[in-house]
Amino acid sequence: MSAFKALRMGIRKTSMDGSVFDMRLEGKVVIAQGGGPTPVINQSLVGAVLESRKFTQITRVYGAVKGIEGIVDENFIDLTQETTHNLEMVAKTPSAALLSTRVKPSKEFCLEIYKTFKAHNVRYFLYIGGNDSAETVRLVNNYAEEDKYEFRAMHIPKTIDNDLVENDHTPGYGSAARFVSNAFLGLNLENRALEGVHIGVVMGREAGFLTASSVLGKKYDDDGPHLIYIPEREFDMKKFLADVDRVYRERGRCLIAVSEGIKDRSGQFLSSKFIERTGKDAFGNLQLSGSGVLGDVLASAIREKLKISRVRADTLGYLQRSFAEIVSKVDRNEAREVGERAAQFAIWNNIDGSVSIQRTGNYSVNYVLKPLADIAGKSRTMPEKFINESGNGVTDEFVGYVRPLVGDGVAMAERLRAPMVKKIINKAGGAR
Amino acid sequence: MSAFKALRMGIRKTSMDGSVFDMRLEGKVVIAQGGGPTPVINQSLVGAVLESRKFTQITRVYGAVKGIEGIVDENFIDLTQETTHNLEMVAKTPSAALLSTRVKPSKEFCLEIYKTFKAHNVRYFLYIGGNDSAETVRLVNNYAEEDKYEFRAMHIPKTIDNDLVENDHTPGYGSAARFVSNAFLGLNLENRALEGVHIGVVMGREAGFLTASSVLGKKYDDDGPHLIYIPEREFDMKKFLADVDRVYRERGRCLIAVSEGIKDRSGQFLSSKFIERTGKDAFGNLQLSGSGVLGDVLASAIREKLKISRVRADTLGYLQRSFAEIVSKVDRNEAREVGERAAQFAIWNNIDGSVSIQRTGNYSVNYVLKPLADIAGKSRTMPEKFINESGNGVTDEFVGYVRPLVGDGVAMAERLRAPMVKKIINKAGGAR
Repeated sequence: MSAFKALRMGIRKTSMDGSVFDMRLEGKVVIAQGGGPTPVINQSLVGAVLESRKFTQITRVYGAVKGIEGIVDENFIDLTQETTHNLEMVAKTPSAALLSTRVKPSKEFCLEIYKTFKAHNVRYFLYIGGNDSAETVRLVNNYAEEDKYEFRAMHIPKTIDNDLVENDHTPGYGSAARFVSNAFLGLNLENRALEGVHIGVVMGREAGFLTASSVLGKKYDDDGPHLIYIPEREFDMKKFLADVDRVYRERGRCLIAVSEGIKDRSGQFLSSKFIERTGKDAFGNLQLSGSGVLGDVLASAIREKLKISRVRADTLGYLQRSFAEIVSKVDRNEAREVGERAAQFAIWNNIDGSVSIQRTGNYSVNYVLKPLADIAGKSRTMPEKFINESGNGVTDEFVGYVRPLVGDGVAMAERLRAPMVKKIINKAGGAR
Repeated sequence: MSAFKALRMGIRKTSMDGSVFDMRLEGKVVIAQGGGPTPVINQSLVGAVLESRKFTQITRVYGAVKGIEGIVDENFIDLTQETTHNLEMVAKTPSAALLSTRVKPSKEFCLEIYKTFKAHNVRYFLYIGGNDSAETVRLVNNYAEEDKYEFRAMHIPKTIDNDLVENDHTPGYGSAARFVSNAFLGLNLENRALEGVHIGVVMGREAGFLTASSVLGKKYDDDGPHLIYIPEREFDMKKFLADVDRVYRERGRCLIAVSEGIKDRSGQFLSSKFIERTGKDAFGNLQLSGSGVLGDVLASAIREKLKISRVRADTLGYLQRSFAEIVSKVDRNEAREVGERAAQFAIWNNIDGSVSIQRTGNYSVNYVLKPLADIAGKSRTMPEKFINESGNGVTDEFVGYVRPLVGDGVAMAERLRAPMVKKIINKAGGAR
């Protein structure tokens, strides 16, 4: 029986406040990082390492090099011997310091992970990643249970997509959202200065959270993005062109935020029609990021159908998840704390599960442990209340939701407000 | 005769130190911004406005809305009435606060500009832009000379491309370089964590300065970018693939920085072979930015010819020139000061020309006025001493050149240095 299930059933004596301490499981901790990077994923790593090192029942804290590949290959580094100072420096560095992997673990692979753990007397597994990683943690934990090997398995949340269920939001999202906000603030100013239509393609295969954060720099009435398209809504090219045409006629310009994961009526990724030349990743996910095809195709459609000459497209790409100097302090702090809490839940409270972030105020959070099975392999999308009626924008409620996550001091634009000068020559229609 | 020429010939009594003050030209100042944005172009605007407003012979300081289009259409705003506080806020905002234009002025257009100036008793024209803008200033100035209309024309340098002749570097470059440095720092960490080949396409049609700045985040021996391709060197696909193959075999990964403006042996832009669907801008320049085609084509070539499966490409695009939160303090200060100095040269010293930045120490600069004709319409590329022998990288001398320009506090990456753990199971070749 899993420790978590036992706890919920009230048959364990360990309590969440740590006051009862009936079990002291001695052994090693293994920490690993999985999937794509975020600017704050190393905060979680360092939080988990430093917290684990405090407990006397922990004999060693290992880091698995290259995620679960490193576990099976026994490529561990001994983080017990890493200096605290260097850990703090690494915490400020984006992307997985332990390196990562895109390997999709089979059941057999998870069994190999478990066997390696047992051989090394590893009693705690803390895995930082998305819902695929949570599933890995769950499978490894199941093998330990079957084998009656005392073992605590913990999933530490991480994803810029913000698509984990049972979480208000996930570490990594706030910093990526801040990057996207900055990007669109600049693109809006560029689009205002030079006119035309500008498209920005944002990461997000299934969830539109990151694309939606493009609104954060909006301040004046006519600021863009004027249109936002997310995977939660069917993408219809005809409606899209009508939207762009309307905005362009009205304002003389149009800034558009588009998720890489927009799909047509049949549920096919719009980009996949044009993207045969790139492969799929090991999870069978289409590789949409890093390719400019979707933006270029939409730009071409606008140019040809709407006869607008200045149409530009940017694909924000991989910069969104590893840009060192754009970090939300809120995101950084929470990423640190989910790592610390994971170690505490596993070692102090002697239970396993997935650490989740719950919003408790405006703005404060609590970290609540959830069963692995509730998180593993599942993903969430934008709630209806965050999407506008036309399906081409977001609501004020979304803005209220996302604003605290990007931290303070986010750049805002200011405009000149000086009065116009009376014309002297006043040629009708100007000189051109 | 131009005031500058007169000064050089020694027949004017105005001296550069401002001690002799034989001429006091009363009238209006017009300030305009041209071409693409930079994160610090409004610093130059605000410097020029605030400095101009100090002089009693200046009756008004106008801003031309949408560059030279706004001049001909008499779309001026009266910046004399703008608050100092709001100007300071605008200074911190990227992209042209006066809006911009890509219109290529004909001689007739420049005559219209001159006529508008005369009608409004404009005696000073301060134009912030690149070498195209300098040419416009020169042409308008010529009309004033022909008409014997007392007039001071000043070009204020601005370009992220860093391609103005007679300058050590140009305002806008340092901040854009800092963005590129951040981008490649993150891409290097991503590439190290997940392996494969990653390509980053950087702005720069003719000059490789911005692409070269991708090296600034390199710290450890194996950090990327490992290969850099710039317009100054002929791009040969065969050599490129051999380079990538060598690095990949050696390191198991490869990060590549490529200028959008790389050309083949015939001098044709590599991207133009694949980019028919996008247009040309009004200057006849091919529109390379914002399209992912070049990166995708290079990625495909690597995938197909070298049989490497994980190949990704990012096109940094328009974010490079308008990202609000990535600003070099050095760049910001210099952008401010070239604006101030332009107003001083024109109004105090009563001369015209182009304000240039000269490096005088390590690190300090002087602002030296150059004749318009020396800057106008000309562009420079990377000096030979900045390019490595193989033509696929930069020299230490370039790093020394660029480092002070991006300002202090640039993000650097840190690595874990903990020792490896001894294997217990030690399967030959690992589990997979």
